[in-house]
Amino acid sequence: MGAPLDDAALEAALAKLPGWSRREGKLHWEHRFRDFVQAFGFMTRVALLAERANHHPEWFNVYGTVRIALVTHDAGGITAKDVALAREILAAV
Amino acid sequence: MGAPLDDAALEAALAKLPGWSRREGKLHWEHRFRDFVQAFGFMTRVALLAERANHHPEWFNVYGTVRIALVTHDAGGITAKDVALAREILAAV
Amino acid sequence: MGAPLDDAALEAALAKLPGWSRREGKLHWEHRFRDFVQAFGFMTRVALLAERANHHPEWFNVYGTVRIALVTHDAGGITAKDVALAREILAAV
Amino acid sequence: MGAPLDDAALEAALAKLPGWSRREGKLHWEHRFRDFVQAFGFMTRVALLAERANHHPEWFNVYGTVRIALVTHDAGGITAKDVALAREILAAV
Repeated sequence: MGAPLDDAALEAALAKLPGWSRREGKLHWEHRFRDFVQAFGFMTRVALLAERANHHPEWFNVYGTVRIALVTHDAGGITAKDVALAREILAAV
Repeated sequence: MGAPLDDAALEAALAKLPGWSRREGKLHWEHRFRDFVQAFGFMTRVALLAERANHHPEWFNVYGTVRIALVTHDAGGITAKDVALAREILAAV
Repeated sequence: MGAPLDDAALEAALAKLPGWSRREGKLHWEHRFRDFVQAFGFMTRVALLAERANHHPEWFNVYGTVRIALVTHDAGGITAKDVALAREILAAV
Repeated sequence: MGAPLDDAALEAALAKLPGWSRREGKLHWEHRFRDFVQAFGFMTRVALLAERANHHPEWFNVYGTVRIALVTHDAGGITAKDVALAREILAAV
């Protein structure tokens, strides 16, 4: 699970992750919620999923906007752990 | 806004608050979410709404279950503040 | 890890868990925080620890007060999982 | 309260906000917590304070690191609202 995904594997993964893209070597996602209450409620769900997976996002928020970047620093790239967390995040929106 | 609602006002309010009932002098609500992640994400939204309103619930959680009771202790009963927060909570489920 | 602790093991565990007690067959703890912001910030830390451990509390909050009960329902009693989570909760206060 | 603070007022405010600085026209703060649990517990406290003040941060997190930028977009600069929230955030660390 440690090795970065190659291009083919990454493309296959992205095909099943609507709204996610590859940017600067990370999995990237952005969403605009109705307001801060909705955005931070979502962030709390993601925080729980991330802590359970012991794999944490780089993320930014202002009001209803949430931007998430996923990468496995230890592996120096996007791995199956990032794809798995991205999938969980999508299911939690 | 401080005085407890009389029976007629309370019945009228409850008619617009599906799922809420009057129990032991408090507004009562219970919901079972899919899992703890969904339940606690919801609780975080309610926490934000409550802090903004400066009116806080009595609440219980175990796994996906959340129980909320609302009352205005200072007024010794259910007031318009409880009804307003109940309405916001419903909108945040 | 699944079996309930016997009395001797439980007493030994409680000796290292200041503020926790045994009540109605559960590990019990209560704390009064300065205000709701402090209380709910603490609850969020506990929520993360609980989700990571896949072991969730029964808990109650009103304003600054937080009450937690821990038990392992599957085992029908207090187990090492409850003691471990209680220890993590203490470290997170 | 709406107008941006002039330089003198801003310097006076910053003198009472240890760890905060002015950067690109915003109040800026960064802290490294022990781990994600501590960082996100703090973020939840800040979220509650922000929602109560109806004034929300631009913020970034990865693991234990939290970066916050405060500015009043409507006013086109740093106002007393930003200083007040910065002070509350400091008290919540």
